[in-house]
Amino acid sequence: MSTRTENDSMGTIEVPSDAYWGAQTQRSIENFDIGRDTFVWGRAMVRALGVLKKAAAQANGELGELPGDVADLIVRAADEVIAGGLDDQFPLVVFQTGSGTQSNMNSNEVISNKAIELAGGERGSKKPVHPNDHVNRGQSSNDTFPTAMHIAVVSELNGRLYAPVERLRDVLAAKGEEFSDVVMVGRTHLQDATPVTLGQVFGGWVAQLDFALAGIRHADSRARELAIGGTAVGTGLNAHPDFGRLTATKISEETGLEFAQAPNLFAALSAHDSLVEVSSSLRVLAAALMKIANDVRWYASGPRNGIGELRIPENEPGSSIMPGKVNPTQSEAVTMVVARVFGNDATVGFAGTQGNFQLNVFKPVMAHAVLESIRLLADASASFTDHCAAGIEPNHERIEANLGSNLMLVTALNRHIGYDAAAAIAKDANKTGSTLREAALRSGKLTAEEFDAWVVPMDMTHPSAG
Amino acid sequence: MSTRTENDSMGTIEVPSDAYWGAQTQRSIENFDIGRDTFVWGRAMVRALGVLKKAAAQANGELGELPGDVADLIVRAADEVIAGGLDDQFPLVVFQTGSGTQSNMNSNEVISNKAIELAGGERGSKKPVHPNDHVNRGQSSNDTFPTAMHIAVVSELNGRLYAPVERLRDVLAAKGEEFSDVVMVGRTHLQDATPVTLGQVFGGWVAQLDFALAGIRHADSRARELAIGGTAVGTGLNAHPDFGRLTATKISEETGLEFAQAPNLFAALSAHDSLVEVSSSLRVLAAALMKIANDVRWYASGPRNGIGELRIPENEPGSSIMPGKVNPTQSEAVTMVVARVFGNDATVGFAGTQGNFQLNVFKPVMAHAVLESIRLLADASASFTDHCAAGIEPNHERIEANLGSNLMLVTALNRHIGYDAAAAIAKDANKTGSTLREAALRSGKLTAEEFDAWVVPMDMTHPSAG
Amino acid sequence: MSTRTENDSMGTIEVPSDAYWGAQTQRSIENFDIGRDTFVWGRAMVRALGVLKKAAAQANGELGELPGDVADLIVRAADEVIAGGLDDQFPLVVFQTGSGTQSNMNSNEVISNKAIELAGGERGSKKPVHPNDHVNRGQSSNDTFPTAMHIAVVSELNGRLYAPVERLRDVLAAKGEEFSDVVMVGRTHLQDATPVTLGQVFGGWVAQLDFALAGIRHADSRARELAIGGTAVGTGLNAHPDFGRLTATKISEETGLEFAQAPNLFAALSAHDSLVEVSSSLRVLAAALMKIANDVRWYASGPRNGIGELRIPENEPGSSIMPGKVNPTQSEAVTMVVARVFGNDATVGFAGTQGNFQLNVFKPVMAHAVLESIRLLADASASFTDHCAAGIEPNHERIEANLGSNLMLVTALNRHIGYDAAAAIAKDANKTGSTLREAALRSGKLTAEEFDAWVVPMDMTHPSAG
Amino acid sequence: MSTRTENDSMGTIEVPSDAYWGAQTQRSIENFDIGRDTFVWGRAMVRALGVLKKAAAQANGELGELPGDVADLIVRAADEVIAGGLDDQFPLVVFQTGSGTQSNMNSNEVISNKAIELAGGERGSKKPVHPNDHVNRGQSSNDTFPTAMHIAVVSELNGRLYAPVERLRDVLAAKGEEFSDVVMVGRTHLQDATPVTLGQVFGGWVAQLDFALAGIRHADSRARELAIGGTAVGTGLNAHPDFGRLTATKISEETGLEFAQAPNLFAALSAHDSLVEVSSSLRVLAAALMKIANDVRWYASGPRNGIGELRIPENEPGSSIMPGKVNPTQSEAVTMVVARVFGNDATVGFAGTQGNFQLNVFKPVMAHAVLESIRLLADASASFTDHCAAGIEPNHERIEANLGSNLMLVTALNRHIGYDAAAAIAKDANKTGSTLREAALRSGKLTAEEFDAWVVPMDMTHPSAG
Repeated sequence: MSTRTENDSMGTIEVPSDAYWGAQTQRSIENFDIGRDTFVWGRAMVRALGVLKKAAAQANGELGELPGDVADLIVRAADEVIAGGLDDQFPLVVFQTGSGTQSNMNSNEVISNKAIELAGGERGSKKPVHPNDHVNRGQSSNDTFPTAMHIAVVSELNGRLYAPVERLRDVLAAKGEEFSDVVMVGRTHLQDATPVTLGQVFGGWVAQLDFALAGIRHADSRARELAIGGTAVGTGLNAHPDFGRLTATKISEETGLEFAQAPNLFAALSAHDSLVEVSSSLRVLAAALMKIANDVRWYASGPRNGIGELRIPENEPGSSIMPGKVNPTQSEAVTMVVARVFGNDATVGFAGTQGNFQLNVFKPVMAHAVLESIRLLADASASFTDHCAAGIEPNHERIEANLGSNLMLVTALNRHIGYDAAAAIAKDANKTGSTLREAALRSGKLTAEEFDAWVVPMDMTHPSAG
Repeated sequence: MSTRTENDSMGTIEVPSDAYWGAQTQRSIENFDIGRDTFVWGRAMVRALGVLKKAAAQANGELGELPGDVADLIVRAADEVIAGGLDDQFPLVVFQTGSGTQSNMNSNEVISNKAIELAGGERGSKKPVHPNDHVNRGQSSNDTFPTAMHIAVVSELNGRLYAPVERLRDVLAAKGEEFSDVVMVGRTHLQDATPVTLGQVFGGWVAQLDFALAGIRHADSRARELAIGGTAVGTGLNAHPDFGRLTATKISEETGLEFAQAPNLFAALSAHDSLVEVSSSLRVLAAALMKIANDVRWYASGPRNGIGELRIPENEPGSSIMPGKVNPTQSEAVTMVVARVFGNDATVGFAGTQGNFQLNVFKPVMAHAVLESIRLLADASASFTDHCAAGIEPNHERIEANLGSNLMLVTALNRHIGYDAAAAIAKDANKTGSTLREAALRSGKLTAEEFDAWVVPMDMTHPSAG
Repeated sequence: MSTRTENDSMGTIEVPSDAYWGAQTQRSIENFDIGRDTFVWGRAMVRALGVLKKAAAQANGELGELPGDVADLIVRAADEVIAGGLDDQFPLVVFQTGSGTQSNMNSNEVISNKAIELAGGERGSKKPVHPNDHVNRGQSSNDTFPTAMHIAVVSELNGRLYAPVERLRDVLAAKGEEFSDVVMVGRTHLQDATPVTLGQVFGGWVAQLDFALAGIRHADSRARELAIGGTAVGTGLNAHPDFGRLTATKISEETGLEFAQAPNLFAALSAHDSLVEVSSSLRVLAAALMKIANDVRWYASGPRNGIGELRIPENEPGSSIMPGKVNPTQSEAVTMVVARVFGNDATVGFAGTQGNFQLNVFKPVMAHAVLESIRLLADASASFTDHCAAGIEPNHERIEANLGSNLMLVTALNRHIGYDAAAAIAKDANKTGSTLREAALRSGKLTAEEFDAWVVPMDMTHPSAG
Repeated sequence: MSTRTENDSMGTIEVPSDAYWGAQTQRSIENFDIGRDTFVWGRAMVRALGVLKKAAAQANGELGELPGDVADLIVRAADEVIAGGLDDQFPLVVFQTGSGTQSNMNSNEVISNKAIELAGGERGSKKPVHPNDHVNRGQSSNDTFPTAMHIAVVSELNGRLYAPVERLRDVLAAKGEEFSDVVMVGRTHLQDATPVTLGQVFGGWVAQLDFALAGIRHADSRARELAIGGTAVGTGLNAHPDFGRLTATKISEETGLEFAQAPNLFAALSAHDSLVEVSSSLRVLAAALMKIANDVRWYASGPRNGIGELRIPENEPGSSIMPGKVNPTQSEAVTMVVARVFGNDATVGFAGTQGNFQLNVFKPVMAHAVLESIRLLADASASFTDHCAAGIEPNHERIEANLGSNLMLVTALNRHIGYDAAAAIAKDANKTGSTLREAALRSGKLTAEEFDAWVVPMDMTHPSAG
C-alpha cells in the first residue's frame, strides 16, 4: 500500500496515499482495534459531523472568523460528507477516546483534505485549509462531538423512526375499527374474564403506541439543545461569542429540524442526561411493542391447542423438522429487538452517570447505543407492520366458540343477584362442566328469560350501570 | 389470639377478632409470606387506597349507585384510612397477586368493617356496608389498584420529592453565585484543561437538576391519567358510565392534584408505560445526582494528595483505624441511592413489558419500586443538601496553586501563534518541568508582554474570539 | 428523652441514656435519615457483625493482642449480638458511609458498652473495653465490613435459601415421576408441536433448578474468602500477621461454614466481584423460576379459553368483580420477585464497578441488595412450593383432547414419507379442519394401518430412529 | 440479477442464481430487514454451524442414518463452511425467528447445495443431498441452533478471549513485581490513607483478573453441554438414540474442546441459563476492567493538577483545541466497552427469562450479545495491554512528594499512643498546614526519635503487630 507521511503534534505517521484522513485518524485506527467488524460509525454519525462542520464554517464565515473562500471550501467538502460520498473515509470505531475526539478529527482531516483538493492543493499539506485552525475553528471535540450526537439522534428519530411506528399505529387502528363488532373473551391473569371487542384490544395497543410516541417526541424536543459554542470545557474559549448560537441556526437550516444552542454548556459537555432521556423514551416504545407482539403471538397460538383467536400471515416454513408448522416469527423478531433495546438502555443509563468535572467521556458508546435502538425499533416496526400486523385476521369460529364457553359472563349477574350468588353459579359450572346458563338456572336465582336478557356479551363491553 | 370467623367465596377462615380486615386479607397473609420484614405496603399506598375508596363512594353516591348513607359511611371510614389511623390494618406485602387484588380487598374489608362499626354494626357482618357490593361498587382490582398506584406516585412526587430536590438546586445555585469569581483549573478526561469558574461548575450541576426536574414533572403530568372506570378488563362493565370520570374529579379534590380518567382504559389496565416513564425520569435525576456527588467528592479529595479544591463539612470521624480522617460520606450515601434507583428502574422496566391480554400482573412490584425510588431520592437530596452541599467551601489556596501550574492555559495562545506552536510550548513545559510562561518565552514565538496579555485565566472562562 | 454525653474524635454528642450505641452511631442516625422505614439493617448483617467481632476478639486474645479478660468480655457481649438480643441497638440504615464504617462502629460501640456493663463499668466510659482499641483491635471498617458482608451472605445462602429451593426442586421432581406417563402436546413458538410427557416438562424445570443451585453453590464457595486482616488499605497495618487467618478460622467455627482469609486483601477491599458473582448466580435462579412460574400459569390458563392442561390450587378468590375466578397468584408473586431480583442484580453489578484505588465505597448497598434477593427467592420458593407446586394436577381430559387434535403428530411421518409430503398433509388438515388421520389417508401416501402404527404419541416422546 | 426458482413447503421463490442458499434463507432475507448493516451473523456463528453439520453428518453416517457417500459430501461441504470460504452465503440477521430456524436452514441449504455441486449435481435440485432429509437429519432448529450457540461461545472464549486477558494479567503482574519497592499514598474514600506499594496496587488488579478468569472458565465448563439430540421439543423424536451423544463427540474432535450432550434436553431447548451464566461471568470481568481502567486514569490524572503518580503512554494528541494535552484514551475505550458489556448482559438476562413451554425463542439475540461481549472484552484487553498497561511507569517524584505530605501516616502511632491522641495530631497538622512530624512533636506525646522509628512508610505496607 502506498502511503504519504502526515504529521501532528505527536510526530509523523504513514497514511494511505489515497486516504482523505490524516495523522490523527490513522493513529486511532492503529490504537483502537476494538470491535472493528460491527462498530465502525455508520451513516448517521458521519452525516451529522458533516452537517456540523458545514454549519460551523458558515457561522465562522459570517462572523469573520474564517476567510470567505476558506469557509466556502469547507462547506463544499462538508456537503460531500453529508451526501455520503466520503463514508469510506470514516474508518474509526466507537471504542476510541471517550470524547469522540478522534472522530471529530477524522471529520476535520477529511474535510480539510477534500477542501484542499477542491482548491487544487496537496493532500496532507494543511493548506489552504487546516484541519484544526480552519475546519475546527472555534470548536473542540468536547462540544462538536456531542453536538453531532444530538444532530444524529434527532435526525434519526425524525427521518427514520416516526414514520414506521406511526404506520404500525395506523394499521392497528384501522384493524381496530374493522373489528369493533367482534366480541371475544377478555383475559386477566391469563384467565378467562369478561368480554371485550377485538376493536378494544387493538385500541389498547394503539393507545400504548400513541403514549410512547408522545414521550419520544418530548425527549426529542429536549434533545434539540446543542453543546456547540462550549469548546473545550463549556466556557466557549477561542470561539466567537455568537458562534454557538449561529451554528445552531445553520444546523437547523441544513436539517430542517429546529435546533438551538444549549442554555448551559457546562452541563452539555459533562452530562448527557438528554440522551439518557431519549433512550428511556425508546424503552417505553420497546415495552409497548413487547406487549403488542406478545399479545399477537398468544392470540395466534395453536393453531389447535392454544388460544387461536387470531390468524397471522404465514411467511415461511416454521420448522425444519415439523412439517406444516407456522410460527409467529415477526413477533419473535420484535421481542428480540426489545431485549436488545433494553440492553442498550442499560448501557446508556450507566454511561450517563460517569461524567467527571467538565466532561463525560462515554460519549461514543452512548450515541452508538441510542442510534442502534432507533434503527432497530424502526426496522422492527416496519417489518412487523408489513409481514404481520397488516395481515392479522380474527378466527371468528374460534372466537365465538371460546366466548360461548366463558364462565366469566357471570359477572353480568353481579348487579342482579349479588357477587356471592354469582360466584356460586360460576363455581358450579366449572366444577360440573356445564354451561353458565345451565348452572344459573339450576341455582334458582334467575329465570331463563332473565339470563338471556342479562347475559349479552356485547352489552358487557361497555359501562353498564346507571 | 382470639378470632372471628369470616367467609368469602372460598369458604370460611379465622381472622383476629380485633382486625378490621376480613377473609381475603387473611388469606393473603397466610398465602404470601414473602419479604414480610421490609415489603409491607407503607403510608403512600394505604393513603392512596383510602383516597380512591372515598372518591369512589362519593361518585357512586352522586350517581345514585349507592344509597347516600352507605356512601357517607364509606367516606368517613376512608377518611380514617387517609389520615393514617388504620395503617396497621394493612398487613399485606408487595409480593401477592400481581393485580394487587388482595390489597384492594384489604381496603374494601377495612373500610367496610370500619364503616359498619361507625354504623353500630358487627364487624364481619358485611352489613350495612358490604366490601364488594358497596365499597368496591363499580370497581375491580384491575382498575382500582393502578388508580391507587398513580395517586400514590403522583402524591409522593409532589408531596415528598420536589421540595428537597429544589432546595438542593437552590443551595447549589446560591453557591454558584457566591463563587462566580473563583477561577480554577478545568478538567476533561481527568486531565488539566482550560480554566472555569467555580460558579460555572455549580451552574452545570444546577442545569442538570433543572433538566431532571422538568423531565419528572412531564412524566408526572402524564401519570395523572387514571384507570378508574375500566373495572375488570377496561370495558367499564358494572360501572356507571360517568363513574370513572367523576371519581377522578373527586380524587383531584381530595388531593389537590389534578387527575383525570385515562382516555384508553384498556391500555391503563394492561400496561403501565406511564410508570415506566416516571421511573425513567427518576433515573435521569439519579444520573445527575451521581455526577454531582462524584464531582464533589473528587474536588474534595485529599486533603493533601488529591484534588483538594473544595472543602466539605466534617460530619463524623472517617475511619475506625485512621485517626483524623474525614470522608465524603454524604456523596457516598447519594451514589449508593443512585445504584439502588438504577436497580429499581430495571425492575420497573422489566415488569412493564410483561403484560398479557387485558392485564399486566406486575403492578405491586412496579408501584413499590417507583415509590422507593422517590423516597430515597427525596431523602438523599435532603441529606446531601443539609450535611454537605450547604457547607461546601472553596480551598482558595489550593485552587490558586493548581491554576498557576496548569499547562492548559496554553490554549489561549492558539489564536495568536497557532495550535501547533502552542502544543510545542506545552510539551516543552511538561517535559522540562518549567512553567508555561518560561517555556513560552523560550520558544521565541511571543514576548513576555504578549504572554501576560494573552494568558489571563479569568478571560479564558468565556468566549474570547471576535 | 434522657441522654448521656458521648465523645469521639469529632467532639461530644448526646446519646439516649439507655442506648448501648455511642457517639459515632448517634452521628450516623442524625446525618443519614435516608429510607429509614425499610432500610435499617436486619438480622443477617447484625448477626454477621457479632460473629466477626467475637472471632476477632478470640483471635486477638490468642495472639496476645488483647488481654484475656478483655477478649472474654467482648466474646460474651458479641454472643448477645449474635443471638439477636441487641438487634434494636443497630438503628443505622444502608445509606450511610460507603465503607460501612458507621455500622462497624455501631457494633464496636454496642459490644464495648455491653462488655463494660458485663464488667460492671459505666456505659460510655470506654473502660475497661474500648470500642476502637479493643473491639476493633487489628481491624478497620474497610476489612471488617466486607468480612461481615460475606459472613451474612454465605450464612443466608446456607441457612435460608438452599432448603426451600431444594424442596421446590424435590416436589417438582416427584411430580415429574408421578406424571411420567401423561403424554401431552408439546409447544414451541407457542405453537403446537410434537408430544412430550408431563414428566418431561417437570424434569426440564428440575434440571433448571439443579443448574441454578450448582451455580449458586459455586459462587458461595468463592465468597468464603474474607477481607479480614487487610485493615485500612489491604496491607494489614496494625494487625498481627496471623490475625486475619486466625479470625477466619474462628468465624468458621462459630458459623459451621468454612471460611478463609482472602489470598489478596487489596482486591478484597477495593472490589466485590465475588458479591457480583453471587448476585449473578441468584439471577440465574430467578430466570429459572420465571420460566417455571410462567409455564405453570400458562398451562393452567383458562379454565376454558386457555391451555387448561394443569390445575393449580385455588387459594383465594381471584377477583373483586368476577365471581368464581381463580388466578395463578403464586406464579405472579414469584415473577414479581424475579423482577425485583433482576433489579437488585443491576444495583449490585453497577455498584461493583465503582471502586477507586484501595476501596469500593458501595459496600452497604451491595450487601443489602444481595441479602434482599436471597430472602425473596427463599420466601418465594417456599410459598410457591406450598401453595402451588405441591398441588399441581394434570387436567387429563383437556390434555387428551388437545393431544388428539394436534397436527404436529405429523412429524412422525417424516421418516416414512419425507418432510415435504408430511408438510402437505398437515397443511391440508389445517386448512380443511379435518383430523390428521383423515388428511393423511386422503393424501394416498400411507394406509390407515401405517398411520396407526406410525403415529403413536407416546412413541414420539423419545428418540425414535435407528 | 439472474435468479433460479426454489421451492419449499410454502411454495416457490426466486433466489439469486449464484447463491448457495435456498428458499428459506431467501424468505428470511425478504421478511427480516432489521439492522442489516451490523447484525448479520459473523464468523463465529457460521463456523459453529459448519462444525455442527459436519459432526452430525459423521454421526449419522456411523449410525447408518445416512448413506456413506451423502455423509461424506456433507462433511466436505461443511468443511468449507468451517474454513470460512462460504461466509458470504450466510446473509441472515440476528433478528429473525427466535429459534434461529432460518439460520439453521441457511446452513442446511448452503451445505446441501455445495455438496450437490461437489457431486456434480444441480444447485436447488435437493439431489443427491437434501437440506432437510440429509443435512438436517435427526435434527431440528430447536436443538441445532442452541448447539451452535454453545459451540460458538465456547470456541470464542477459548480461541479469542483468554489469551489477551491473560496477557494483560501477566503484564500487570510483571509490573507489580517491578514496582514492589515503590511506596505510595494509599487512598480510601478518595482520601489519603495509609501507604501501599505500587506492587500491591498492581497485585490487587491481577487478583481481580484471576478471579474473573476463573469464573469465566467455570461458566465455560458448564456451557460445554449441548442440546443436540433433543430435536423439536427435547424428546429426540426422529433422531437415533445415540445421535446426540455421538455428535457431541465429533464436535469435540473437530474443535479440540470437550463437549458433551446435555443431561436434560428439555431444559437445553427451553432455557439458556448457561448463556446467562456465561454473560454474568463476562460482566464480572467487565467490572474488574472498569476498576483497573479507572484506577489507571485517576493515578495518571493531571499531569499537574491531579494525582499524577503514574505515567501512561502518549498515543495520540489529546485535544483538538488544547495543544499538548494527553488523555487516558485506552482507559476510556475500556470503560466504554464495559458499559456495552453491561448492556449486553441486561439483554441476555432479560431474554433468558422469556422461555415458554418447550422453547425459548430469544436464542439469536442471546447468542449475539454474548459473542459481542466476548469480542469486545478480548479486543479491549489487547488494546489496553499494548497501548497502555505495558507502558505504565511510576512518576517517582510525584509519588514521593505525595507520600511525604500524607497525614495518614499517623496511623502508625495508634499502637503507641492510642487512636484518640493520634487523631488529635492529624487534625492539628491538617488545620495548621504543618507536617505530621511537626504536629506530633508539638503534641508532646512522643519524641523525634520515636516518630522516626515508628513512622516508616515501607513498614506500614504489611501487618505490623505481634
